[in-house]
Amino acid sequence: MNLTYLTLGAGVLALGYSFYRTAWISKQDPGTEKMVKIGHYISSGAMAFLRAEYKVLIWFVLAVAILLGLSANEQSSHSLVAVSFIVGALCSALAGFLGMRVATKANYRTAHAARTGLESALKVAFTGGSVMGMGVVGLGVLGLGGLFALYMLYFAPTTGSEMDRVLNILSGFSLGASSIALFARVGGGIYTKAADVGADLVGKVEAGIPEDHPLNPATIADNVGDNVGDVAGMGADLFESYVGSILGSMVLGAAFIDVLKDVDGMNGLSAVILPLALAGLGIVCSIIGTFFVRVKEGGDPGRALSFGHYFSSAIMIGGAAYAIYALLPATWTTTSILEGTDRVFTATGVLVATVIGLIAGVLVGGITEYYTGTDKKPVTGIVFQSTTGSATNIIAGLGLGMLSTGLPALIIGASIVGAYHFAGLYGIAIAALGMLANTGIQLAVDAYGPISDNAGGIAEMAELPPEVRERTDKLDAVGNTTAAIGKGFAIASAALTALALFSAFMKQAGLKAINVANPTVMAGLLIGAMLPYVFSALAMGAVGRAARSMINEVRRQFNSIPELKNALAIMKKYDGDMKKLTTSDRKIFDAAEGKPEYAKCVEISTSAAIREMILPGLLAVVAPVLAGFLVGPEALGGLLAGVTVSGVLMAIFQSNAGGAWDNAKKMIEKGATIDGVLYKKGSDAHKAAVTGDTVGDPLKDTSGPSINILIKLMSVVALVIAPLII
Amino acid sequence: MNLTYLTLGAGVLALGYSFYRTAWISKQDPGTEKMVKIGHYISSGAMAFLRAEYKVLIWFVLAVAILLGLSANEQSSHSLVAVSFIVGALCSALAGFLGMRVATKANYRTAHAARTGLESALKVAFTGGSVMGMGVVGLGVLGLGGLFALYMLYFAPTTGSEMDRVLNILSGFSLGASSIALFARVGGGIYTKAADVGADLVGKVEAGIPEDHPLNPATIADNVGDNVGDVAGMGADLFESYVGSILGSMVLGAAFIDVLKDVDGMNGLSAVILPLALAGLGIVCSIIGTFFVRVKEGGDPGRALSFGHYFSSAIMIGGAAYAIYALLPATWTTTSILEGTDRVFTATGVLVATVIGLIAGVLVGGITEYYTGTDKKPVTGIVFQSTTGSATNIIAGLGLGMLSTGLPALIIGASIVGAYHFAGLYGIAIAALGMLANTGIQLAVDAYGPISDNAGGIAEMAELPPEVRERTDKLDAVGNTTAAIGKGFAIASAALTALALFSAFMKQAGLKAINVANPTVMAGLLIGAMLPYVFSALAMGAVGRAARSMINEVRRQFNSIPELKNALAIMKKYDGDMKKLTTSDRKIFDAAEGKPEYAKCVEISTSAAIREMILPGLLAVVAPVLAGFLVGPEALGGLLAGVTVSGVLMAIFQSNAGGAWDNAKKMIEKGATIDGVLYKKGSDAHKAAVTGDTVGDPLKDTSGPSINILIKLMSVVALVIAPLII
Repeated sequence: MNLTYLTLGAGVLALGYSFYRTAWISKQDPGTEKMVKIGHYISSGAMAFLRAEYKVLIWFVLAVAILLGLSANEQSSHSLVAVSFIVGALCSALAGFLGMRVATKANYRTAHAARTGLESALKVAFTGGSVMGMGVVGLGVLGLGGLFALYMLYFAPTTGSEMDRVLNILSGFSLGASSIALFARVGGGIYTKAADVGADLVGKVEAGIPEDHPLNPATIADNVGDNVGDVAGMGADLFESYVGSILGSMVLGAAFIDVLKDVDGMNGLSAVILPLALAGLGIVCSIIGTFFVRVKEGGDPGRALSFGHYFSSAIMIGGAAYAIYALLPATWTTTSILEGTDRVFTATGVLVATVIGLIAGVLVGGITEYYTGTDKKPVTGIVFQSTTGSATNIIAGLGLGMLSTGLPALIIGASIVGAYHFAGLYGIAIAALGMLANTGIQLAVDAYGPISDNAGGIAEMAELPPEVRERTDKLDAVGNTTAAIGKGFAIASAALTALALFSAFMKQAGLKAINVANPTVMAGLLIGAMLPYVFSALAMGAVGRAARSMINEVRRQFNSIPELKNALAIMKKYDGDMKKLTTSDRKIFDAAEGKPEYAKCVEISTSAAIREMILPGLLAVVAPVLAGFLVGPEALGGLLAGVTVSGVLMAIFQSNAGGAWDNAKKMIEKGATIDGVLYKKGSDAHKAAVTGDTVGDPLKDTSGPSINILIKLMSVVALVIAPLII
Repeated sequence: MNLTYLTLGAGVLALGYSFYRTAWISKQDPGTEKMVKIGHYISSGAMAFLRAEYKVLIWFVLAVAILLGLSANEQSSHSLVAVSFIVGALCSALAGFLGMRVATKANYRTAHAARTGLESALKVAFTGGSVMGMGVVGLGVLGLGGLFALYMLYFAPTTGSEMDRVLNILSGFSLGASSIALFARVGGGIYTKAADVGADLVGKVEAGIPEDHPLNPATIADNVGDNVGDVAGMGADLFESYVGSILGSMVLGAAFIDVLKDVDGMNGLSAVILPLALAGLGIVCSIIGTFFVRVKEGGDPGRALSFGHYFSSAIMIGGAAYAIYALLPATWTTTSILEGTDRVFTATGVLVATVIGLIAGVLVGGITEYYTGTDKKPVTGIVFQSTTGSATNIIAGLGLGMLSTGLPALIIGASIVGAYHFAGLYGIAIAALGMLANTGIQLAVDAYGPISDNAGGIAEMAELPPEVRERTDKLDAVGNTTAAIGKGFAIASAALTALALFSAFMKQAGLKAINVANPTVMAGLLIGAMLPYVFSALAMGAVGRAARSMINEVRRQFNSIPELKNALAIMKKYDGDMKKLTTSDRKIFDAAEGKPEYAKCVEISTSAAIREMILPGLLAVVAPVLAGFLVGPEALGGLLAGVTVSGVLMAIFQSNAGGAWDNAKKMIEKGATIDGVLYKKGSDAHKAAVTGDTVGDPLKDTSGPSINILIKLMSVVALVIAPLII
C-alpha cells in the first residue's frame, strides 16, 4: 500500500507542476489591448459552453448515481459505486475545466510571444499543453488511486473475490470519467464543426472575408470551438483511456492475488498495484520529457516535440522494467481465465507486453501520419484526383480512409496476440497501459496544436504583423502532424483499453467464453458493429443541423447590422485587399469593429451542441444496459466485441479520410506541383479539395473521435453492471 | 433419394422453361435495322467481356482444382472435391453466359415492343429476366443435386460422419460457384462503372451530348456494362447465395442423420434432402408466379411485378409446410452442437424458421426501398441538403447510408436468434433458404430492370419516337425500385447464408465454440472486420483507374476522328438541340455515324476489369486459407465472424448511400418541389446532386455488392478447408 501512496505523490506532483506552469503562463505578457479583448471573448465563450454543458450533465450524473446506488446488491457490489461515479465525473469535468482555462490563457500569450520569436512562442504554447496533460494524468491518478486507497482501508480485502468487489466499486470512477468524456467529445465536436462550417460558408465563401476576420460574427465561436473540441475533447478522451486502462489492468491483476499472496510480500496485491505504479512512473517520465522540448529560431518545432516525447518513452521503458521486476516475482503459476488450465506468468512477460503496447502506439501513430501527411503519397493522390472534380476527390478520400484501416488492424491484432502470449489477459491490459503511461506528455504535444492554431487566429484578428502569423503557422503546421499522430494513438489506445475493459468485464461477470457461434452472441456482434454507424450518422446529422442555424444567424447579422453591411460592401469592392482602402473606407470599416454579435453565435453553437449530444450519448449508455439485462451477459459480450472492432475501424476510416482531405486542401493552397502540374488556390482542383475538406470535417472532428469514447464507455458500463446481470 | 430425383426434375423444368422462353424472345420482332445493329454491338461487347473473363478464370479454376485435389486427405475429404469445384465453376459461368445472352437479345426487342405499348414491352423485358432467374436456379439445383445424387450412389454413406465427408466433397461446388461469382461481380462492377463514368464525364459534361447518344464512343461500353454488372453480376451473386444456403442447410441437416435414421423412413436423410426439396418447390412456385406478372397500358408495372413475387412467396409458404411436415417427424431429440446438451427439434419449428427467413428478406428489402426511394423522406432530405452544395449533399448521403444500417442489423439479428430458437443452427440455414427459395422470380424481377434500362438506351441511340422512351423510362423507374429491394434482399440473404456456411464450417471443423475472449479470435475478428474496408478501397481505386483510361480514350477519339470532331462542333453550336440542324449540318452529322470506335472502349473496360478483379479476388480466397493454416480454425472462425458482420454493414451502408444519391439526382432532374421550393435540372443543387451520384456509383455498383460475395466466399473457403486444418 505504500506504493499506492507513492503513486498518489506522483499525482500531486503532476498537479503541482500544472499549477506552477499555469502561474508562469499567467505572468506572460498578454500583448495589446485588442489581443486581450479577443482572448477574453474566446475564454468567456469557452467557459460559457462548459457551464452550459455541466449544467445539463449534473442531472445526468445525479440520475445515474442514484440508479447505481439503488441497484447495488450486497454480495458483489456496493452503493459506494455511486460515490466513485460522482468522483470520476468530477475529476473528468475538472480536467476539462483546467485544461480549457489554461489553453484560453495561453493562446493570446502565444500570439504575443510569437512577436518576439519562434522559441518563446513554442514555449508558451507547449507549456499550455503540458498543463492540460499533467492535469489530466494528475487528476486520473489522484482520483482513482485516492479512492482505491480509501476503499482498501475501509474494506481491507484479503482474497481475490473480495478484491473483485472493491474493484467493482472502483469501476464507477471509470464510468464517471467515460460518460463525461463522451458528452464532452460529442458536444465539443458538434460545437466546433457547427462554428467552423458557419464561419467558412457564410464568411469566407459568401461574404469573401478571410478566415478569422473580426468582422465575421462566427469567428469567436470558431476559435472557442478549437478549444472546446480539440483541447477539452481530446483531454477527456485520453483521460478515460488512461483511467480505463489502469482500472482494467487492476481488475485482471486481481486474478493473481490468491497465488501471489505467498510470494510477493505485499499480500498478493503487487499485480493490482503495478498499474498504478506504472502510471505514477509515467507522470515522472512525462515531466522530465517536457524539459527537453526546446527549439531555436529557425529550428524545427516538430523535432523538438518528438524528441521530448520519445525521450520520455525511452526512460519509461527503463522505469517500467525496474517497477515490474521490483514488484512481481520472476515467475508464478495460476489458472488461466480463458483456458481453465495452469499457466506460467513471468515478470519479463509483463515487461514485454508493456513494450508491445508502447511500440504499437508509435507504429499506429506513424501510419496515421503517412496516410494523412502533407506531401506523402496518399494525400498527393487526393490532390491529383481533385483535378477531375469534387466527385473523384471524394471517392479518393473515402478509398484512402478505408485502405488506411489495413495496417492498424494488423498491428493491433498482432499486439493483442503478442501481449496475450507473453502475459495473458493481464498482458493485454498492461499493453494498453504501456501505450498510455506517457499520456502526460502525449497530451501536452496534442494540446499544443489548438493553442497555436488559436494564437494564429488571434494574430489575424488583432492585425499583428505578418511574420507573427508566419511563426504561428509554422507551429500550427507541426500541430497538424502531431494531431494526426495523436489521433492514431488515441484510437489504438482506445482499442486496447476497450479490450482490457472487455476482459475485465468477462472476469467480473464470471464468463469463461463468449461463443460467436451462439446466435445471441452473433446477433449482439452484428448489432454492436452497427452502433458506430448509427452513432456517426447521428453526430453528422447534428453537425449539419447546428451548422444550418449558425449559417442563418451569420446571414442575419450581415443583413441586419448596418455597420457590418457597409464594411462588407467595401470588402467586396476591394476583393478583400485591405491595403487599397481609402481613408473614408477605413472609417466605415472601423465603425464596424465590435459590431458583430459574437455572443449570439457562441450561444447558438453552445445550445445546439448541448441539445444534440444527448441522443448519441444515451445510445452508448443504454445499449449495453438493455443487452445485459434483457438478453444476458454473453449477448452483451458479443455487443461489446462488435462495437469495439467496428468502432476502431470506423474511427480510423473517418479520422484518416478527414485528415487527408484537410491536408490535400492545404497542399493545393500552398501551391503543390505534382508531375510538373501546379495546383493552386482558386483553381477548380482547389474547389474540389474544399468540398473534400468540408465533408471530412464532421468525420474527423465529431463522429470519428467520439467513436473512440463510445467503445470504451460501453465496455465500462458493462464492467460496472457485470455483478448485477450474472 | 427419390425426392432428390424429383428435385432434379424441378431443375430440368426450370431449364426447360428457360429455353422455351428464350426461343419465344428470339421470335419477337427485333425492330429496325439500326436497332439490330446497336443490339449486336452490345451483345458482342458483352460476349467479348465474358470470353476475356473466362479465359483468365479458367487458369484460376484449374490451379485451385489441382490444389484441392492434391491437398485432400483420405479420412475426411476426397480429391473429388476438385470435380465438384469445377462443376460449380462451370455452372456459375454457364448461368452468367445464358443470362447475358438472353438479356442482350431481350433489350432491343423490348425497345421495339415499347413502340406498340407498355404491356408488350413489360412482357419481353420480364421474360428476359425470368430466363435469367430460372437459368440460375435450374443450374443450381441440377448441378448441386446432380452431384449429390452421384456421390450418394458412389459413397453410399450410412452414418452422420460418412455423410459429412460426402458433403465436404459437395462443398467444392459452392466454392466453384462463389469464386466465379466474386470475379464476375468485381469485374462486372469495375466494367460498368468505368464505362459509365467515362461516358458521362467526357460525353455528357465535356462534350455536351446526351446520355446514350451514338456519337459517344463509350456509349456501347456503358450499355454492355449494364448487362455485365447488373445482369450477370446480380445473377452470380444470387446463384452463390442460393447454392450456399442449400449446401449449408444440408451440412447442418447431416447432424440429425443418426437420430432420424429410426424415424423418418429414409435412412435419416430427410433433413439433408429437405433443403433440396425446398429449392425444387421454390422453382415451381417461381414459375407459377411468373404467369401472374401482367400489366395493361396505363397500368403500374411495379404492382404487377410485386404481385407475381408476393403470390409466389405465399404459395411457397404452403408448399414449404407440406414438404416439411411430409419429410420431417413431428419431433426428434438430438445433442445440440453448441450447447452439448439434448435439444428437442420439431417440424413446426423448421417451418417457422423458413417463414422467418422469408419475412426478414421482405422487411430488409422494404427498408432499403424506404431509405433509397424517390420522394421518400430520406432521399428528399438529400435533395434539400444539395442546395448548400456538394459537401452537404455528400455528408447527408453518408449519414443516410450509415443510419440505414440500423433496422436491417436489428432485423437480421432478430431472425438469427428467432430461427435458432425454433430450429437450432439448422434453423438459421433454413431461414436463409426460405429467403432464397424464390430466387427464380426474385432474380427475374431484378434482371428485368437492366433490360428495360438498355431498351431505353437503344431507343435513344436508334432515335425512336419519344413515347417509346417514355414507356421504357416507366419500366426503368420501376426497375430502380425493384433493384433497390433486390439489393437489400441480396444483402440480407448473404448475411444469413454466410452464417449458415459459418455454422457448417464449425460443424465440419469440429469446433464447439469460437471464444471472442481468446486473443487470436479477437485479432481474427478485427482483421476480418477490416477486410471489407480494404476490399472496398481496392475496388473503388480500380474503378477510378479504369475510368481514367476510358476518359482518355474518349477524349482521344473526339480529338482525332475528324467526322466526330465536326459533328461535336455542331452539337455545341445548337446546344444539343437536334431540331435546329440545317441540311448541311445534318450531312456532317450523318457522316459521323458509325465513326466512333466503340470496340476500343469496350476493350478498355474489359481489360481493365479483368486486370483489376484479380487482387481483390485473391484477397478473399487467400485470407481464410492463411488464417486457417497459419493460426488455426478458431482464429479463422473469428475472421469469418468479423468479415460477416462488418461486410453486411458496409454493404448496406454503401448500397443505400449510393442508391439514395442516385435517386436524389433523379428527383431534381424530374423537378421536385420541397417546402415550396422547386429543384430543377441545371441548378446548383443539381450539380451537387450529380457529384453525389458519381460518388455513389462505385459504392453501390462495385464495392457494395461485391462485399456480399466476399463474405460468402470466405465462409465457403473455410468450409472446404475445414477437414484439412483441424
